[in-house]
Amino acid sequence: MDDTKETGRTEAFSDGVFAVAITLLVLNLHLPDASLSDSNLGGKLLAQVPAFAAFVTSFATIGIMWINHHRLFTHIKRVDTPLMLLNLLLLMIIVFVPFPTALLAEYTVQPDQHLAAFLYCGTFTVLAICFNLLWRYASYKNRLLDKKADPEAVQAITRQYRFGPLFYLIAFGLAWVYVPASIAANLLLALFFALPGRKPPPTVPSPPIE
Amino acid sequence: MDDTKETGRTEAFSDGVFAVAITLLVLNLHLPDASLSDSNLGGKLLAQVPAFAAFVTSFATIGIMWINHHRLFTHIKRVDTPLMLLNLLLLMIIVFVPFPTALLAEYTVQPDQHLAAFLYCGTFTVLAICFNLLWRYASYKNRLLDKKADPEAVQAITRQYRFGPLFYLIAFGLAWVYVPASIAANLLLALFFALPGRKPPPTVPSPPIE
Amino acid sequence: MDDTKETGRTEAFSDGVFAVAITLLVLNLHLPDASLSDSNLGGKLLAQVPAFAAFVTSFATIGIMWINHHRLFTHIKRVDTPLMLLNLLLLMIIVFVPFPTALLAEYTVQPDQHLAAFLYCGTFTVLAICFNLLWRYASYKNRLLDKKADPEAVQAITRQYRFGPLFYLIAFGLAWVYVPASIAANLLLALFFALPGRKPPPTVPSPPIE
Amino acid sequence: MDDTKETGRTEAFSDGVFAVAITLLVLNLHLPDASLSDSNLGGKLLAQVPAFAAFVTSFATIGIMWINHHRLFTHIKRVDTPLMLLNLLLLMIIVFVPFPTALLAEYTVQPDQHLAAFLYCGTFTVLAICFNLLWRYASYKNRLLDKKADPEAVQAITRQYRFGPLFYLIAFGLAWVYVPASIAANLLLALFFALPGRKPPPTVPSPPIE
Repeated sequence: MDDTKETGRTEAFSDGVFAVAITLLVLNLHLPDASLSDSNLGGKLLAQVPAFAAFVTSFATIGIMWINHHRLFTHIKRVDTPLMLLNLLLLMIIVFVPFPTALLAEYTVQPDQHLAAFLYCGTFTVLAICFNLLWRYASYKNRLLDKKADPEAVQAITRQYRFGPLFYLIAFGLAWVYVPASIAANLLLALFFALPGRKPPPTVPSPPIE
Repeated sequence: MDDTKETGRTEAFSDGVFAVAITLLVLNLHLPDASLSDSNLGGKLLAQVPAFAAFVTSFATIGIMWINHHRLFTHIKRVDTPLMLLNLLLLMIIVFVPFPTALLAEYTVQPDQHLAAFLYCGTFTVLAICFNLLWRYASYKNRLLDKKADPEAVQAITRQYRFGPLFYLIAFGLAWVYVPASIAANLLLALFFALPGRKPPPTVPSPPIE
Repeated sequence: MDDTKETGRTEAFSDGVFAVAITLLVLNLHLPDASLSDSNLGGKLLAQVPAFAAFVTSFATIGIMWINHHRLFTHIKRVDTPLMLLNLLLLMIIVFVPFPTALLAEYTVQPDQHLAAFLYCGTFTVLAICFNLLWRYASYKNRLLDKKADPEAVQAITRQYRFGPLFYLIAFGLAWVYVPASIAANLLLALFFALPGRKPPPTVPSPPIE
Repeated sequence: MDDTKETGRTEAFSDGVFAVAITLLVLNLHLPDASLSDSNLGGKLLAQVPAFAAFVTSFATIGIMWINHHRLFTHIKRVDTPLMLLNLLLLMIIVFVPFPTALLAEYTVQPDQHLAAFLYCGTFTVLAICFNLLWRYASYKNRLLDKKADPEAVQAITRQYRFGPLFYLIAFGLAWVYVPASIAANLLLALFFALPGRKPPPTVPSPPIE
């Protein structure tokens, strides 16, 4: 009973942070004053296309990270102080996302574009590491999981997350080569994490279910 | 039990996004510095009348979209990954609303005014399409609905939503003719969607209730 | 069961809007760039004293309005479409509060100061009217109240709210005479509404409790 | 039942305020326009290091204050008007935190740096006092606590909080000597409050458990 309540507030606080961070992304879409510049709204909107692309990519990423957070907390039933601190660390990265998104939208000229993309992909790499830390801490010997958690579902998440940081490092590497490719890679990675982890193939013997 | 919890967090996250997006609208009401310009607050407030009108219309629209979201989730009892992604898509449009609202408030001169109104009405058209997608996915063969959901109430929603995108396209067309008329049409459409869908008239045989 | 859930989401959405609106007030506390002006932080902070006063008054008012909202929904157990629309109207005024607060903080010179204070007090007068509308709609013939609601407690709220708009109109009048007095009156009124409504004195026969 | 609901909404509103305040911190991370200045993003990011340090410290502090708020409300089971007002006071300080954080990030030159650090540490000192007020009001003679609250756990919190304001005053003093040391002290204090209060050592006889 107490445990449920505790998870409840941690989830509610996290939901709030995700919701605010994802909504603040719209503040990065801004236009020069109508009065100051020549009256050509169409041209200004076209100039904002990189900002729109960064908005959609960041929105998809934060949104799908929320789906993942929600998925983890379907299994996590108790919170303790280390978990709350790891969750705070994860939320700090989420809250930070609008900043590199704004950089990426604004610095579209060489060589700053590479640095902005580096910061953007680096943020998501750290985020993937935080998700691994949170999940491994909670799932280690079923420490904080539901006693009735399906071991296969737990393993499927662990397996899916294991390579997350590596994949994000590849997107990070692409940022040095060709920036749009790295943004596209981030979008693909977000979609990959939107899918639930696959159950192990039958050739791999699954641990006996107690 | 699990399903209820899942709907709970999806609703809580959505509530948060709606709440933040609707509140951020006030940031579009801004005045030039008191120090920089001549001290005529009254005149400046009058110049903000289009911004106030856009604020009220967007607030009413997001608020009534929240009422609709709430109404749908009275019937939806389970969430799966596609529903969460469709919900994210819908929330992305909601989060985007403050941007065309700001455009409409700021670009009051021809021909930019038409382009701003086009983006404003276009956003609401896409929003109406997203609502249809979400509802049709969830209600198709009662996929994610409450087993005890009243089929007539479900049909009433489907019927009311069917013409939503079309109505918004008409408002969209008005934007090319006379911008204030299209804003008024959006306000009327919001009020139309505030009302619950009408039950089918008795001449139409309703499906047998199982 | 259904009714409780409906109240639950209306309360959650309202909590979100109150929480965001009250937090956005801090954005009105801003300083000129450290780089642009001469390095005298102390003086600049002193120049912000009206902004701090407006921040504290608005925070107290929104916070206490939240306490009142919470108190009403202790008795309200069901929501219908008109109540949701009245609640949206009330929330729109809450969301609007940061704007007149910013005006009051920035326009400290005559005659704009009076106009800003007029808008500030006027907003709170409209807010008091909205609270009356919401409560009267819900409590009329116990329409949406808990069936076990204590009639004396319900009457105490009705009695306390009846004179709210009048009191705020007095603060509004003070704004034309002396602005700081009207701000102080708003702060006093907030504290008055923080107290629960008094039960009727024994000389007034209370309605029989069923 | 009623009591639980009341705590529920107070916690939900507080969660919302904490979530928004902690997320708004990212707005303090801003860069000069890409177009206006010379294109050297790396140098500009380096110049933002104090802002990043202030962001991390404030995020950790607000986050850990949320953990403490959550810990207190594990024991608090009922709310009354004074508690709601004390909670509002505490939330007002939380909401205020982004302002001194922005000052600290922006005013990095003598003597303004000391004044900014003074305001920063002073805010946290007042916050520590507010936490003591809230807890002492709620726990005085178990006024609003769960009847089954463990007296040792309650005492452990009281003991840990007693010296909070004093410790923050020391960080406040450090701000006059060497600003980075005071920021580090604040970070250490946040970590100290992240740990649950220690149970009393066995030599101190604990009060009999009723």
